[in-house]
Amino acid sequence: MPVEKRHPIPVKEAIHRVLQQDIYTEQTRVSLYESEGYILAEDIVATHDIPRFDKSPYDGFAIRSEDSQGASTNNRIAFEVIDHIGAGSVSKKTIQPGQAVRIMTGAQLPEGADAVVMLEQTVETAKGFTLRKAFERLENVSVKGEETATGDVVLHRGQRINAGAVAVLATFGYAEVPVYRKPTVAIIATGSELLDVEDDLEPGKIRNSNGPMIAALLQKEGIDVVRYNIQMDDYDSSLSVISSALEQHDMVITTGGVSVGDFDYLPDIYQALEAEVLFNKIAMRPGSVTTVAVAQGKYLFGLSGNPSACYSGYELLTKPAIYHMMGALCCYPAIVRATLMTDFKKANPFTRFVRANVTLTGREATVRPSGFNKSGAVVAIAHSNGIMMLPGGTRGYHAGHQVDVLLTSVEMYQQELYI
Amino acid sequence: MPVEKRHPIPVKEAIHRVLQQDIYTEQTRVSLYESEGYILAEDIVATHDIPRFDKSPYDGFAIRSEDSQGASTNNRIAFEVIDHIGAGSVSKKTIQPGQAVRIMTGAQLPEGADAVVMLEQTVETAKGFTLRKAFERLENVSVKGEETATGDVVLHRGQRINAGAVAVLATFGYAEVPVYRKPTVAIIATGSELLDVEDDLEPGKIRNSNGPMIAALLQKEGIDVVRYNIQMDDYDSSLSVISSALEQHDMVITTGGVSVGDFDYLPDIYQALEAEVLFNKIAMRPGSVTTVAVAQGKYLFGLSGNPSACYSGYELLTKPAIYHMMGALCCYPAIVRATLMTDFKKANPFTRFVRANVTLTGREATVRPSGFNKSGAVVAIAHSNGIMMLPGGTRGYHAGHQVDVLLTSVEMYQQELYI
Repeated sequence: MPVEKRHPIPVKEAIHRVLQQDIYTEQTRVSLYESEGYILAEDIVATHDIPRFDKSPYDGFAIRSEDSQGASTNNRIAFEVIDHIGAGSVSKKTIQPGQAVRIMTGAQLPEGADAVVMLEQTVETAKGFTLRKAFERLENVSVKGEETATGDVVLHRGQRINAGAVAVLATFGYAEVPVYRKPTVAIIATGSELLDVEDDLEPGKIRNSNGPMIAALLQKEGIDVVRYNIQMDDYDSSLSVISSALEQHDMVITTGGVSVGDFDYLPDIYQALEAEVLFNKIAMRPGSVTTVAVAQGKYLFGLSGNPSACYSGYELLTKPAIYHMMGALCCYPAIVRATLMTDFKKANPFTRFVRANVTLTGREATVRPSGFNKSGAVVAIAHSNGIMMLPGGTRGYHAGHQVDVLLTSVEMYQQELYI
Repeated sequence: MPVEKRHPIPVKEAIHRVLQQDIYTEQTRVSLYESEGYILAEDIVATHDIPRFDKSPYDGFAIRSEDSQGASTNNRIAFEVIDHIGAGSVSKKTIQPGQAVRIMTGAQLPEGADAVVMLEQTVETAKGFTLRKAFERLENVSVKGEETATGDVVLHRGQRINAGAVAVLATFGYAEVPVYRKPTVAIIATGSELLDVEDDLEPGKIRNSNGPMIAALLQKEGIDVVRYNIQMDDYDSSLSVISSALEQHDMVITTGGVSVGDFDYLPDIYQALEAEVLFNKIAMRPGSVTTVAVAQGKYLFGLSGNPSACYSGYELLTKPAIYHMMGALCCYPAIVRATLMTDFKKANPFTRFVRANVTLTGREATVRPSGFNKSGAVVAIAHSNGIMMLPGGTRGYHAGHQVDVLLTSVEMYQQELYI
């Protein structure tokens, strides 16, 4: 019963090997209204200036600034109002000396006008209004092209489409958006100890939590997942299911079976699939046996069967790979530095990842482990919004220490805004 | 043409008024597999211990610890292996003195055993193995209930269901999950200057970007939205559409029409609907005219027609309201403190919100405005992942200053992990 020798590599080397793969989804087009969360496949160019025309940012009166010169409290200058336009309307009139057009926010300045007087800066008269100060050319005017000019690249290939990008695409008339297809992912939980959520408990068994958890993580990214039936620890049937999943999906994620135990068949299955194993040991806790392989130009993620290890493996390796496949330029997680609020005395021979709850309220950036911390723990994941990263070689941390925390989500807080 | 006088209230007072409303969706049940992103409507109780039984966290041998006492390099103690179990199997044998059971990660300890020897701590023999160190009771054992005991409240009412919570629910057999229904939201863009994304440009007009943007923001939260047709600045038709939307949805969001311009009909419409206006002026820039009203026990959000103001209004007021309606305990955004990387010299007579790009890589927490900063700007929203909050009364900021940034999303970065 010899135990296979594995060679641990640093976490960043593992991520690097994953992101080095030439594995991408194709380009496609989606409706603007479904595009949020996709990665742009082309640069997007401004099809017109923003603003499209000199426009009024206020409700007021469009005037010729030169007509206001010399105005003061003791020398109010009178204007005659010759038209009245709201946003979307264009005055047919050209302003002549002493004339003005009543204009609403967003409306195009009429011909001849080069400044806007706000309503509250005027006193009404029978034919119009008076004002008491001189206006400069383009005062209170949103000038054509001041934000963006026709032809400017306004969104970049490889950029994630957020709601703001949707607004930009709408502005420039992109009803369809060039994106990279989202990968389809097969999730296969392996382990003879596993029961389905609906099953009654049996001796020695537990319910499969990794499958639903990984499915939820992918669904959060808008990824279609197929949850396969739980696979017993059996080489033949597991090989057959994984091999068929690999044909039908862009990525196959398994949980469990990647260690060196007598019933851990994933290493043999990678061999049978002629997969290139990028690594099968990482210098980290938990999840050191997390394995990533490539077969038929597709990723095979072998995540740990221990929930906390499985979760960390997803956040550290799978999520970056998903973004990489979709053509994202940015594939690394956000990290914040926070003050540890409790002692964490365990030494860290290897880099340790601890499910944690980080509080970010501006005045406070604090973190604490979110519960029981062993690789098999599950409740602590539910109370986490980040993962503390304690570098290998460190000897234990105390309350008050600054630690780095990988942000897994932006939470809402109970703490009111102070502003 | 008198201008309506409005009384600005502080931002936090505005949020407070929104969250004070007794407006909630009902409880319902959803499938575990769709539950991510919902708010839990009940406390969730552990239906069994975790671990369910004393289990092995390693591949190795289960022994009676007392049999290992006195073992050393010079006095290796021999064990006979009487059984071999993987996870999910339960040995039918009870370990007697000098006996061991080969056991894999996750398997239940056999009767009589109280410690686990890791494979690499043993030397194989014909009938079993020898070891050279004494083991303590429960050494290398995941003890029944060490994470959670039956009856413990493991998830709380009002908690957002993340992937970890899905794992917990799966573990305890909750195939259906008690949650608060997600609200349905009507989005109505108003403004005679607005064209649809498919429309060709016309003089004085621009395409509607706010509607698609707000829809994308809500879809990110898994909220069903109905995008209504663009409404011209016409009182009768707008009233009729808004009133019908209010009957069919839990929330109505309009964009535009909330100011005091001649064609801003929302104030009159609130009156016609007998809505209680919670506020119609906030001491902030942009978006000071953002209005929230309540009619028929439902929220009416009157967001600005200016994209940057519209966006900030959503993040500051609408998103918290959505979480509040769904029964969330936490409704306030995350704020990080970051180093401003460029000068921002404008004085801030009112609290100013600036769409910004924050870089969070652990070693770096920096922020810069994400583009042209006027309330009508749209491109800057697409390049933002946060909103700088510059308190009213401050006189301008310089590179190097610390500023607070509301996080609107967790971005991925190009910066590699250093770990």
